[in-house]
Amino acid sequence: MSHVLDEAISVVPVADGVVRATTHPAYANMVGPFGGVTAATVVQAIASRPDVLGEPLAFTINYAAPIADGQWDLHLAIVRTNRTNQHWLFRIVQNAATVSTGTAVFGLHRPTWSSTEAQPPVVPPAADVEPVDFPEFIAWAANYDMRFVVGGLADGASEDSTSTMWIRDLPERPLDYPALASIADSFYPRIFLRHGTFTPAGTISLTTYFHATPDELAAHGTDHLLATARAARFGNGHFDQDGTLWSMPDDGEPVLLATTHQLVYFKDPQ
Amino acid sequence: MSHVLDEAISVVPVADGVVRATTHPAYANMVGPFGGVTAATVVQAIASRPDVLGEPLAFTINYAAPIADGQWDLHLAIVRTNRTNQHWLFRIVQNAATVSTGTAVFGLHRPTWSSTEAQPPVVPPAADVEPVDFPEFIAWAANYDMRFVVGGLADGASEDSTSTMWIRDLPERPLDYPALASIADSFYPRIFLRHGTFTPAGTISLTTYFHATPDELAAHGTDHLLATARAARFGNGHFDQDGTLWSMPDDGEPVLLATTHQLVYFKDPQ
Repeated sequence: MSHVLDEAISVVPVADGVVRATTHPAYANMVGPFGGVTAATVVQAIASRPDVLGEPLAFTINYAAPIADGQWDLHLAIVRTNRTNQHWLFRIVQNAATVSTGTAVFGLHRPTWSSTEAQPPVVPPAADVEPVDFPEFIAWAANYDMRFVVGGLADGASEDSTSTMWIRDLPERPLDYPALASIADSFYPRIFLRHGTFTPAGTISLTTYFHATPDELAAHGTDHLLATARAARFGNGHFDQDGTLWSMPDDGEPVLLATTHQLVYFKDPQ
Repeated sequence: MSHVLDEAISVVPVADGVVRATTHPAYANMVGPFGGVTAATVVQAIASRPDVLGEPLAFTINYAAPIADGQWDLHLAIVRTNRTNQHWLFRIVQNAATVSTGTAVFGLHRPTWSSTEAQPPVVPPAADVEPVDFPEFIAWAANYDMRFVVGGLADGASEDSTSTMWIRDLPERPLDYPALASIADSFYPRIFLRHGTFTPAGTISLTTYFHATPDELAAHGTDHLLATARAARFGNGHFDQDGTLWSMPDDGEPVLLATTHQLVYFKDPQ
């Protein structure tokens, strides 16, 4: 039996360079589908191409308009293939209108000098943190086991927009690039946390850098990721968010799997 | 007399949705032109369009191949115009090949609740820090007054990839969005700092979020910006970089003008 994420991100070819996806009710959000699963669908569609070079390195998706329930078409184009990397351009089209655009850089992982300067937050183990349930109108959240160390959705207004959580797919699923792309968008809007209330907000542009190698993803398996995100500035109708996603092996060094950034539109709470 | 930055980013229309730029020797880099001035050219070209909505909010440019000295064509397309924002897709074409792609979101600034959580680094005033000269083969750097508080190019190998500097255009020029887009790419590669030496490295993908309003840019004027950047993870041929650009008025609160992120390709030093 396939995992619900695999069902949600599956596509069928419809033309040269065009594949068709269908929104999955399990990943519905307040308006349109959860952006993370849209991103995951694009990453998976590119990774599945026979002419792809390597793995995802940098990925940007712009959410220009909500996707309506139903089918949508992903137009993929290889812009340039270099010796070690490959540049992609994509559009998501629904009812003859472009609802999303973006770019992806895929490439090879080559052994080089390495160093991780970022530090994961200091947290209790996932087993010691209670999973939380999101309200039913945030359907997609039911596909994640989310355990907030700080900045949970029900914690009330906070002076600090940081959320830190343990997260993994529910049911468990071995981590891969599409799943990581989706989890990169799994932080609820930071404006909710600052005000302790819901207010209209939506991601405009999301960029994720994939640091993880295939071996690191395989080593991670189905464990919880440690994920933390914070806004730098809110104002004039927008805020940004920076996040880091970590693998935290019991018997080794933390591995920074991805860094992720977004710009979000918001309205003031009423 | 026009400023050299204005000369470098100027374009002429050549077809519907296509403008032509010409590389400027003053902004040459080791291989091709300085990426910051390429980004600034795109921001300026979009901002100059009569059908533009608002100001730049989110901007991503992918450097797929070096731009050769000479002319290049910028293909601009409005993908969608919403009530408060507008999505752009662009390609840079030279000698019939795409050398760069990207997306931009422009939009309106609306008065809302505001809060800045990020903090600028604590530094001495610009007047108390010595400007540095870059080597001649990094021509573009001569167009900036850069004063490193930490992480200067000649400081030798460091365990920490942070550079913090005061920076402004040289000669002085009132700050605007194109200038800010260029300064967002003005941090030399973090790998140089970690090893205390030059090594092949180049930005693959750059994303900048513009937080500044037009009024904040006008208030900043020709002062130095406070700019700081750091890598999170180096490895497998790539590293990322996160930066913040601040206006530091003598008589007011710091203003976070922009946050900027990039993924960079590198080879090990020999």
